[in-house]
Amino acid sequence: MSVAQEVEAANAKYAASFTKGDLALPPQRKVAIVACMDARLDPARALGLEEGDAHVIRNAGGRVSDALRSIIISQQLLGTREIIIVHHTDCGMLTFTDEVIRGKVRADLGQNVDHIAFLPFDDLKQSVLDDLRFLKESPFVLDVPVTGYLYEVETGKIVKV
Amino acid sequence: MSVAQEVEAANAKYAASFTKGDLALPPQRKVAIVACMDARLDPARALGLEEGDAHVIRNAGGRVSDALRSIIISQQLLGTREIIIVHHTDCGMLTFTDEVIRGKVRADLGQNVDHIAFLPFDDLKQSVLDDLRFLKESPFVLDVPVTGYLYEVETGKIVKV
Repeated sequence: MSVAQEVEAANAKYAASFTKGDLALPPQRKVAIVACMDARLDPARALGLEEGDAHVIRNAGGRVSDALRSIIISQQLLGTREIIIVHHTDCGMLTFTDEVIRGKVRADLGQNVDHIAFLPFDDLKQSVLDDLRFLKESPFVLDVPVTGYLYEVETGKIVKV
Repeated sequence: MSVAQEVEAANAKYAASFTKGDLALPPQRKVAIVACMDARLDPARALGLEEGDAHVIRNAGGRVSDALRSIIISQQLLGTREIIIVHHTDCGMLTFTDEVIRGKVRADLGQNVDHIAFLPFDDLKQSVLDDLRFLKESPFVLDVPVTGYLYEVETGKIVKV
């Protein structure tokens, strides 16, 4: 069975007891979360978010430079006025370099992806500091409160950077 | 109180009963979900995902072209072999054009963002079909099962496209 089929079965249960059909489009809590795509992190459960609360933008590493399009839309069109960054321990982004993944794609797929910056990092705390600075310095991002955290996959805790 | 402070309080409760500290880095169910950042969609609850199950990549619209960096990392380094796309009804991406948001950023921030493609769409079903095709045609993406859904924010149901 594909995961798609499993997901359809799970969704049927979710929809059967669904009571949130009248939520507004703009996030109720006026916040955009930028978090890593990592499977072990569930931003809603770990941060106490309900349906309707927050934009949740996720990508490999939770890098804000790769989330810029979404952040601009979130602020300019949907009124969010706070940003929370969540990176995490044991992140896959610590395990490779641009050269490694470009070489792997060249070997496996015969394709050149030298034009893609994969945004790995070798220091977790610094990756959050870099992303905090990126937002503060970007002329395309509003001057709003921004907080950065490291989520500990071992404990479930977030630690402010 | 900032949302960051509220999130810290919510996380303290989550961490207090956390029992999933030994999950592996690669997603257990070998799937990457690409979904919209919309606040009303909670992919974990709506699709039946537990911590450790799936990569969840989210951006404005759930556009796969903007998720390509993350998808390549997910497949090449972390072994996912299925992709699920989730767009949804009442999406903010239906409400504007590149010209509108570029004009708004110019007016509000005095900045030119003509270099950013914001990837809005005017047909929901077509947006999913376009993204399914993008993945099938991309030389950088493995030939894996890909399924596209529209999530109905009114009912909580997913509908296969």
